[in-house]
Amino acid sequence: MPELEAVLANIESNLDAAYERLFALLRIRSISTDPAYAQECRACADWHVKDLREIGFEAEARETQGHPIVVGHDRSSTGRSVLFYGHYDVQPVDPLGLWDHDPFEPFIETRPDGSRAIRARGASDDKGQVMTFIEACRAWKAVTGKLPVATTILLEGEEESGGASLPGFLETHADELRADIGLICDTNMWDAKTPAIQTMLRGLCGEEITIHAADRDLHSGFYGSAAANPNRILARILSDLHDADGRVTIPGFYDGVPELPDALRAQWDTLNFDAAAFLGAVGLSVPAGERGRSVLEMVWSRPTCEINGMGGGYQGAGFKTVIPSVASAKVSFRLVFDQDPHAIRKAFREFARKRVPSDCKVEFAEHGAGRAIRFPIEADAFAKTRDALSAEWGRPAVFIGGGGSIPVTAELKQKLGMDVVLAGFALDDDRIHSPNEKYELESFRRGVRSWARVLQELGQH
Amino acid sequence: MPELEAVLANIESNLDAAYERLFALLRIRSISTDPAYAQECRACADWHVKDLREIGFEAEARETQGHPIVVGHDRSSTGRSVLFYGHYDVQPVDPLGLWDHDPFEPFIETRPDGSRAIRARGASDDKGQVMTFIEACRAWKAVTGKLPVATTILLEGEEESGGASLPGFLETHADELRADIGLICDTNMWDAKTPAIQTMLRGLCGEEITIHAADRDLHSGFYGSAAANPNRILARILSDLHDADGRVTIPGFYDGVPELPDALRAQWDTLNFDAAAFLGAVGLSVPAGERGRSVLEMVWSRPTCEINGMGGGYQGAGFKTVIPSVASAKVSFRLVFDQDPHAIRKAFREFARKRVPSDCKVEFAEHGAGRAIRFPIEADAFAKTRDALSAEWGRPAVFIGGGGSIPVTAELKQKLGMDVVLAGFALDDDRIHSPNEKYELESFRRGVRSWARVLQELGQH
Repeated sequence: MPELEAVLANIESNLDAAYERLFALLRIRSISTDPAYAQECRACADWHVKDLREIGFEAEARETQGHPIVVGHDRSSTGRSVLFYGHYDVQPVDPLGLWDHDPFEPFIETRPDGSRAIRARGASDDKGQVMTFIEACRAWKAVTGKLPVATTILLEGEEESGGASLPGFLETHADELRADIGLICDTNMWDAKTPAIQTMLRGLCGEEITIHAADRDLHSGFYGSAAANPNRILARILSDLHDADGRVTIPGFYDGVPELPDALRAQWDTLNFDAAAFLGAVGLSVPAGERGRSVLEMVWSRPTCEINGMGGGYQGAGFKTVIPSVASAKVSFRLVFDQDPHAIRKAFREFARKRVPSDCKVEFAEHGAGRAIRFPIEADAFAKTRDALSAEWGRPAVFIGGGGSIPVTAELKQKLGMDVVLAGFALDDDRIHSPNEKYELESFRRGVRSWARVLQELGQH
Repeated sequence: MPELEAVLANIESNLDAAYERLFALLRIRSISTDPAYAQECRACADWHVKDLREIGFEAEARETQGHPIVVGHDRSSTGRSVLFYGHYDVQPVDPLGLWDHDPFEPFIETRPDGSRAIRARGASDDKGQVMTFIEACRAWKAVTGKLPVATTILLEGEEESGGASLPGFLETHADELRADIGLICDTNMWDAKTPAIQTMLRGLCGEEITIHAADRDLHSGFYGSAAANPNRILARILSDLHDADGRVTIPGFYDGVPELPDALRAQWDTLNFDAAAFLGAVGLSVPAGERGRSVLEMVWSRPTCEINGMGGGYQGAGFKTVIPSVASAKVSFRLVFDQDPHAIRKAFREFARKRVPSDCKVEFAEHGAGRAIRFPIEADAFAKTRDALSAEWGRPAVFIGGGGSIPVTAELKQKLGMDVVLAGFALDDDRIHSPNEKYELESFRRGVRSWARVLQELGQH
């Protein structure tokens, strides 16, 4: 039996144990943005170290200013080298009341049609996806005693909370981490049957803005209209961010944003993206972005501005006639092509400051910055990965754009000179970052098999 | 010794016991807007019933759809009759972290200059003010065995939460409650040395608006700009409520709002209101209302629109790149002259609906409605009260406008045909509705003495 067939057979016969390992990982409440869960983040890093060592990796949890970064090396092969990146942290779970179950008590749900999914926070983003790669390595090691390529695994614990530690870590450990190609499993399939490699990624700029008005909460009957209301000031700033055509109004925001190249637009047209189904799946029907743009452009190749959170004043039950002293919002920008996150942050702050009365104060806090990125789809590793995915799924893998931001890709390019193959098995309806997140059992099983194939392909030269 | 002198002496010699009674009342957490405190509201009503009975009133806590209403009668006098109205409920206490002490553990604070204040939620609004009247009654009964006027006391438990039960209660019990004049102690002095009778009150219309977009929270990377963001829709609605000149833009909003009569404007000019000091006391300096209006107009005679609360999406520590499914706000309008709260509610809802995309939903909830009111300052009871207050404080009491809304005044006029004398002893810096609410010990002591004098004056015809 050829090696690959034996590895795939090993994967199939060890699936239950693989689920158990994933479940153990999912039970750890590694919410990186909330300091209350710092110990759980550390526990998650330690879990990975122990697991990687069991497979045969030299692995450690390395300290950072934030949560630890896990690094594992397997040098059983020479020749081509790969760096696999993933993250062990997860998004917060609020509003908890909207979950049908405990987000940290994973289980397999069987649906009426017989399909099955793993349900838990992080099942898809990114613990389930990370384990597809690790289980593929485990199978290769179990069957052949080695991996087809020299492999480094890098697992971050701050991907969902700004990723402050990683850039410096990459810089400090550049020689240790540099590889011929990067592999990341944190993206979606094109659809449930069509594997995809994402070759364009939007960047991100996250900002928190806080407006301070009076030095105390005021009674709106006594001070109403005379005293500045930070809710009103903030609403004005947030409202002014878009014009009536859905365009972002911050001066210079669209600098470095070209029209989509005709060739890429032609390729995307062949995907027959169903905008009505995309929006319909979440109960919507009216595209909210720039007038005159397709929904695919909106989510893949156009920059965005979203108010991720806002709050000020009394939000409890009933009513309170208060003028609050403070109001704040979290705003994020998804960036494309050559937009500069630092220039946009600066422009946003100027835009906001102009709208704050002279007797009020505005404060800003930075929550992450990353440029957009595009990869050379003609390079060898991309072709090999496409071939491996196409073989596993029985239909050609497609090169796609994507709306999410994975800042590490830009960092790997910039600091280590590496291109990254983004191949993931999540589906659009996985509800990542939402209540009731899930990961298809088929995503997991065939994800593991896919990586087993990719490793073999990459090892053949 | 004339009766009044004996009553005033009795008040002075029983002050400590009066503080103890007020403290017992302040310890009851009667937050009416939060259902969690329903039992405490009931306990507060029961406390008043027991206390009024001890003074000699026939008193009962009457059931309503909401919190009980306390009614007490003392019919020891014939002749002129008065209805005293107050409320035993208080505002919520959040944000609790901004209090220097437990809001429900009252104490007397002595300041470096020797002045003293009662500190607790409700110390000023309205428990402390209510007890000035009740203690005055207690002294009259103790000294003379009766009151100078036929007295009914009506204490509501929903004033801070929309007051839904009171209008129907007044209607049902009109014959029992109707009196020659209403007395309310829920307003401020002009300043710490100048007593005031408020003869204009703004009305109120409270609305809660909720925007529903997608049927779940979404990842802003995948759905950003394509999917409707309820924060953005809500910010647009809230921002659009005012134009660049600070005017409310809702069609028809200013219907029934005349310019201030010249005579009243002239009287207000004599008050030498210090707008800079008024705003400076809370750390502000720029009037936020309609351009071209004085601050006194803004808070006394012009209608307002305030965003008392708003919220949507992730408001915790850190950052979450979510597009929320829902966002909501609490908006209140202070009304003047002949503005119709129901017409304004309707216009606001139309205004908002026009700004909600067709694939999103908007819901509204009503939080109270009351018209503005003006009283005939030339009537006998107003002159008598002014004389009594002037005698106690040693300087002429003034007739003033006011920004707050006391909906019961409109109800008493409309349903019982009664005018109301609004005489209160609170100060502008009492921080009502805010953390660290206080009531000056002098407000309390001289408030009790003031009512003792008012009762005598009113009893003289």
